[in-house]
Amino acid sequence: MTVVDKKQPTDRLQDSLTQVQRLIERHRLVEDLVHRQDMPRHDLVESLVHKQNLAELEHKLEALHPADIAYILEALPLEDRLLVWNLVHSDDEGDILLEVSDAVRESLIESMEQHELVAAAEQLDADELADLAADLPRQVVYEVMGGLDEEERQQLQSVLSYEEHQVGALMDFELVKIRADVSCEVVLRYLRRFDELPSQTDKIFVTDEDGVLKGVLPVRKLLVSDTDALVAEVMATEVVSFRPEEDAADAALAFERYDLVTAPVLDEHGVLIGRLTVDEMVDLIREESETEALNLAGLKEEEDLFAPVIDSVKNRWAWLAINLCTAFVASRVIGAFEGSIEKLVALAALMPIVAGIGGNSGNQTITMIVRALAMGQLQPGQANRLWRKELGVSVINGVVWGGALGVLAWMLYGNFALGLVMLAATTLNLMLAASMGVLIPTMMERFGKDPAVGSSVLITACTDSGGFFIFLGLASLFLL
Amino acid sequence: MTVVDKKQPTDRLQDSLTQVQRLIERHRLVEDLVHRQDMPRHDLVESLVHKQNLAELEHKLEALHPADIAYILEALPLEDRLLVWNLVHSDDEGDILLEVSDAVRESLIESMEQHELVAAAEQLDADELADLAADLPRQVVYEVMGGLDEEERQQLQSVLSYEEHQVGALMDFELVKIRADVSCEVVLRYLRRFDELPSQTDKIFVTDEDGVLKGVLPVRKLLVSDTDALVAEVMATEVVSFRPEEDAADAALAFERYDLVTAPVLDEHGVLIGRLTVDEMVDLIREESETEALNLAGLKEEEDLFAPVIDSVKNRWAWLAINLCTAFVASRVIGAFEGSIEKLVALAALMPIVAGIGGNSGNQTITMIVRALAMGQLQPGQANRLWRKELGVSVINGVVWGGALGVLAWMLYGNFALGLVMLAATTLNLMLAASMGVLIPTMMERFGKDPAVGSSVLITACTDSGGFFIFLGLASLFLL
Repeated sequence: MTVVDKKQPTDRLQDSLTQVQRLIERHRLVEDLVHRQDMPRHDLVESLVHKQNLAELEHKLEALHPADIAYILEALPLEDRLLVWNLVHSDDEGDILLEVSDAVRESLIESMEQHELVAAAEQLDADELADLAADLPRQVVYEVMGGLDEEERQQLQSVLSYEEHQVGALMDFELVKIRADVSCEVVLRYLRRFDELPSQTDKIFVTDEDGVLKGVLPVRKLLVSDTDALVAEVMATEVVSFRPEEDAADAALAFERYDLVTAPVLDEHGVLIGRLTVDEMVDLIREESETEALNLAGLKEEEDLFAPVIDSVKNRWAWLAINLCTAFVASRVIGAFEGSIEKLVALAALMPIVAGIGGNSGNQTITMIVRALAMGQLQPGQANRLWRKELGVSVINGVVWGGALGVLAWMLYGNFALGLVMLAATTLNLMLAASMGVLIPTMMERFGKDPAVGSSVLITACTDSGGFFIFLGLASLFLL
Repeated sequence: MTVVDKKQPTDRLQDSLTQVQRLIERHRLVEDLVHRQDMPRHDLVESLVHKQNLAELEHKLEALHPADIAYILEALPLEDRLLVWNLVHSDDEGDILLEVSDAVRESLIESMEQHELVAAAEQLDADELADLAADLPRQVVYEVMGGLDEEERQQLQSVLSYEEHQVGALMDFELVKIRADVSCEVVLRYLRRFDELPSQTDKIFVTDEDGVLKGVLPVRKLLVSDTDALVAEVMATEVVSFRPEEDAADAALAFERYDLVTAPVLDEHGVLIGRLTVDEMVDLIREESETEALNLAGLKEEEDLFAPVIDSVKNRWAWLAINLCTAFVASRVIGAFEGSIEKLVALAALMPIVAGIGGNSGNQTITMIVRALAMGQLQPGQANRLWRKELGVSVINGVVWGGALGVLAWMLYGNFALGLVMLAATTLNLMLAASMGVLIPTMMERFGKDPAVGSSVLITACTDSGGFFIFLGLASLFLL
């Protein structure tokens, strides 16, 4: 009997990556040798070593889980990635394409012939195929659809009819259904007719003759129940279910809240049409958090670490452009006060501090509020209350930090009035930051926009331009 | 038979929150009336209405899942939160305390008497108690531990001996164990002796007489197997297992990669000591992503939305202070060039643009690299390759955007040389941003620090001070 491998999965994966990299390196070295020494290509020894490296690599890859191969592909530069991809067993290609990130998937699909793509796609279930369809050439999708049976085609079309962020786009169709009026004994016998139950099966769906969901029979209850008991007696009727048009992020929150493993998806008549599984929800939560991080940094989408320079430029230019526009506005605000700066050049050195602390503080406020909105914990009526709280925080911070800055400015430039202006400007800019930090996300939410996207850019624009205007304006009024 | 509720869980939860808020409002209104009109407190009608509201609220709360009550508590201001908390059925208190965020938990625990806390804690399993222990008064923990049996006490101590980010701190002990040499029939009969199998049970652990894990029997295989088959024939021996001292974030990645629902935790001898479940991993992934978002915004920890102003100030001051220090350095860089600014005041208006675009671009680079490091996809040897790629991106962006800015500066101030300086400074600052964007996280990783924490602050500090220095320095050299 094999002993269970006690190595930590992360270490094992790192080992695999290192092994693959070493094999690739050796392979390249041999290739290089053959090339450089102008040896005849058919030199027996070299050719053997050459083949042996690739065979070893292929053997290594065969032993790996598709998710692990996907991980290794992500970590390799393009030419190495394609070398590995060509050695992957074709049965795994579909699963691997599902696992890799969008950017890497694109590079792999580009390298494949149409018949290879069709072969890879044909191994997938309807719901998996739907995930991939957008990235595949149209011709490939048509050809694969032609090979599906009627039920699968309908499932595929149903999944494709929903948008990426909807429950319907994430559901699968691996449903085990039973009737309520049979005994547990019958259910157990029925299940034994399967070769294997669908992955993640933690409950069996109980439906009536019209397919309407009547309840669910958790497997952990079925296993402890009296075999003579009827399903109707054992099943749970309080079921957390979803509608296909519902927001998938809301479904993920419900999975978290109620510790679900699977959940039924029902149409408007209560008919069971699919199921959600926790592994999809885990992927969704991870994706959401990455999108958020990328957006905050001004990246449009996930980037292949080894993407060509030009692809990276394309991915990043949009937010840089927005940043430049807001910076230009701030620059024009300063431009309007050039006369004041000429008279008191210390203003130029101090103004970025006022703008910076406002931006930092505004981002703190906005992060809190965006989060509360995303969790649905902030009711419209409470924005006022929060605004008052945030103003309170900003006044305290303004007096404390503005005071410190004021003293610093006073000591540096020996100008007491300049210190007072610094204190006042810092406090006012923090108050502006607090107000905009509450206003921007709540307004975006009201107008049906996602408050997470762009909030940070907007608030920084406000606190930069606002900070410069307040500081230089107060200085012009009171110091010159 | 109850019909399955087809309402979407999110809507249902929102409805519950609204209902609770309405009942609280009504309750406060009555209270207010009694108070304001100086009615005698025993006025029968008022008192009845009063009681009726609270009874209705209590009734409503009884029907809710602990996770839903936790959600509602999060969304309520402090006084309303405590009102609801006092009406919660005491059997649920422990579970609710586990579900709420740290900040809200603190406010609830503060409001409870010691004997109430002991009662709430006593309802929890050892692993749940361990999660709560850090927030409970020491005396309460001792009292609860006194009531545990020997096995539970050992479990509690074992969980408490691991740090929060380790697998051991997240494992539970609800293990169903069998031997390999029995038939599936025997297993099924054995399981039927349980009242209920532990939640999330998707596999049964197969151990030998020493408790060493020999394999796992997935329930979905058990259900389809021949009842005469031996466990040893049916079980899976390729098991993803974890060590208690392993990083929990790595475990979460493995759960994602292999679509796990539960996984065994083994000690160094391969003895089964606990299990991880996907619901803990989901919570962990969500928590990680929130911590990241909070840290990026400069918040130390999750903040109770309705926390007193002073608590918020405490939570936020540290990063504001860091921000002020870096801003002060940048300000001193400008101060060193005050002479140049006095001669050409346009510099003051243009310098924030150069600094700003550098910060934005540097954050894009650093986000990519921090992510790749977190996923373990970036090997040390590849930093160089990435650096060259990022430099390429920054040169292109520098020429394009720097060129546009140069033209703008030229047109605004009618000074061609100023435009050239703008172009050069933008390009150089973007190159600085790219270099630091690769260097900072890889160095932090090398020195064993978490590259996600503070990277953004560091890069902005570099690009601000660096941008001012490059721009003002070039201008001083070539324009004055």
